[in-house]
Amino acid sequence: MMPNASFPQFRRDPLLDRWVLIAPERAAKPTECEAPALLAHHEVCPFCEGQEYETPHEVFAIRTRGTLPDTPGWRVRVIPNRYPAARRDAPQLNADDPLFPTRPGYGIHEVIVECPQHEIALAALSDGNVRDVFGVYRDRLAALRYQPGLEYVQVFKNHGAAAGASVEHTHSQILGLPRVPRDVRDEWDGAADYHRRHGRCPFCELLAQELASGERLVRVTEQCVAFTAFAGRFPYETWVVPRRHGSHFDQLTAAELTDLAAVMRSVLRRLGPVSHNFVLHTAPLPEPESAHYHWHWEILPRLTGIAGYELATGYFINPLPPEDAARRLRNED
Amino acid sequence: MMPNASFPQFRRDPLLDRWVLIAPERAAKPTECEAPALLAHHEVCPFCEGQEYETPHEVFAIRTRGTLPDTPGWRVRVIPNRYPAARRDAPQLNADDPLFPTRPGYGIHEVIVECPQHEIALAALSDGNVRDVFGVYRDRLAALRYQPGLEYVQVFKNHGAAAGASVEHTHSQILGLPRVPRDVRDEWDGAADYHRRHGRCPFCELLAQELASGERLVRVTEQCVAFTAFAGRFPYETWVVPRRHGSHFDQLTAAELTDLAAVMRSVLRRLGPVSHNFVLHTAPLPEPESAHYHWHWEILPRLTGIAGYELATGYFINPLPPEDAARRLRNED
Repeated sequence: MMPNASFPQFRRDPLLDRWVLIAPERAAKPTECEAPALLAHHEVCPFCEGQEYETPHEVFAIRTRGTLPDTPGWRVRVIPNRYPAARRDAPQLNADDPLFPTRPGYGIHEVIVECPQHEIALAALSDGNVRDVFGVYRDRLAALRYQPGLEYVQVFKNHGAAAGASVEHTHSQILGLPRVPRDVRDEWDGAADYHRRHGRCPFCELLAQELASGERLVRVTEQCVAFTAFAGRFPYETWVVPRRHGSHFDQLTAAELTDLAAVMRSVLRRLGPVSHNFVLHTAPLPEPESAHYHWHWEILPRLTGIAGYELATGYFINPLPPEDAARRLRNED
Repeated sequence: MMPNASFPQFRRDPLLDRWVLIAPERAAKPTECEAPALLAHHEVCPFCEGQEYETPHEVFAIRTRGTLPDTPGWRVRVIPNRYPAARRDAPQLNADDPLFPTRPGYGIHEVIVECPQHEIALAALSDGNVRDVFGVYRDRLAALRYQPGLEYVQVFKNHGAAAGASVEHTHSQILGLPRVPRDVRDEWDGAADYHRRHGRCPFCELLAQELASGERLVRVTEQCVAFTAFAGRFPYETWVVPRRHGSHFDQLTAAELTDLAAVMRSVLRRLGPVSHNFVLHTAPLPEPESAHYHWHWEILPRLTGIAGYELATGYFINPLPPEDAARRLRNED
């Protein structure tokens, strides 16, 4: 009855819709199963230009015309994760025992190396470089639509040891899985419910109210608005939302891409050298464009820990009122 | 429309059933809004015997007969949290704006100081001392039943900076709130659903299956069983479950208390000096004894971080198969 765990596999909690990827290959990852507070030290950084042979073969890159894959000449480079949480060749092992449900650990796990030089923060890159990075997120999402069996592609960034990073060179990750994760599904359903009851997209309404009150605004441009989240889990938690309604991030316009990159970079610069994550919220791959869902990014600074209370309850404690956080991010204090 | 945030208040995410306690008083807490990787250094530890005047007035203690509150002579001491996430006197400020729901930050936030001497780990205390600590958890839960307006009392432990601790002296916390948190409610509902479909308590069934297979067992006594969780979020995640069915932790027997303390201490000793949380799962206060819910403790070692993927999706990645973790905790490797 018990599945073999030498390959990645999904296991579900007996009672909650909480799936865990048991990923034995990640045990080889430098920081796993050790103290999480230190980044791996590399004599030679495997993500730097000139070290392409240190990584798996690239799956995509923005390159100077005429240069070959896995050689210098790239600006942003996408490679398979060397310690994948999910694999394309995960063996079939569905088991529907109600207490021990499992699924194959099928999926796509990629790393986006954001620049060729050894830089540790996205915010330190040029506006054009940051735009390239967000353009690569868009292009990978668009490409992974055609990968059979994926239902949701999560784009995320871990910056600093307290945010779960294990390599210093600035990079982000894409994890595509055959299942829409719980929090993504809950947000989707919550937005549909709001739309049904109020006849409007909740994010469009949120934008209107944040622009009207102004007390949580951080940065406003023609295409995008950044504001601290009213019920932010973390001090300085900031959401970046496009003004134009759209469900799928990979459908954004060139003007939105330019503004989004500038706003993300600007908020991250204002945060300073703080461990943080940022994560994309976008519609599940199979969903059509929808009147109720609106893609956005969430920036999650990791100044406070996630302790026993949060892990037991799913609730959070945030010591900094978001209105104060916005004022500080606007440099008004 | 916007509520004042100088007192603790609950705020709900516009779309998810995720409430956040905005707790400005905690901004004064030593580690909040700074790097979370360091414990506060105290010249004089406020939790040590003889320093009782450094803390708020005690609400409960196991004391030598004849000694006075807030003086030496105690073995386990309960005090109000100096940096409360919730307060008994939080002002009324319900607001039902669908995008900005708030509730008063009403609640009880206590600290249990687990021993009078400066010891940093529960596992280093004697079996009798650990039994006293779990007895105090039971007694506080039983007492807080009579506190008006509380629906759920969460008992939790943060050990080590990576697990969210801010004071070194071994202690745990109790946070009682007028609301059953999302994950508690989901587990309760999931158990009710399992019971409806299979005619049995899922935890009783889980115990039977874990005892039969043996591959995730860590420690077995007459009253309690410890096993690594099949879908554990963290390496070495271990659940401790009483054999006798019971919904409310504060109804446990003296024999169960003795065994529970011994098993918790034993698992924590085997884990070694690793940051961890442990959290109680028990029935919500207003619920009667139920055939479907079974109290238990979860031990959550914090060897791996919580990164962007987990925060975006509610799913987890665990690099250590729970069967391997159990083998190591049994010292068979």
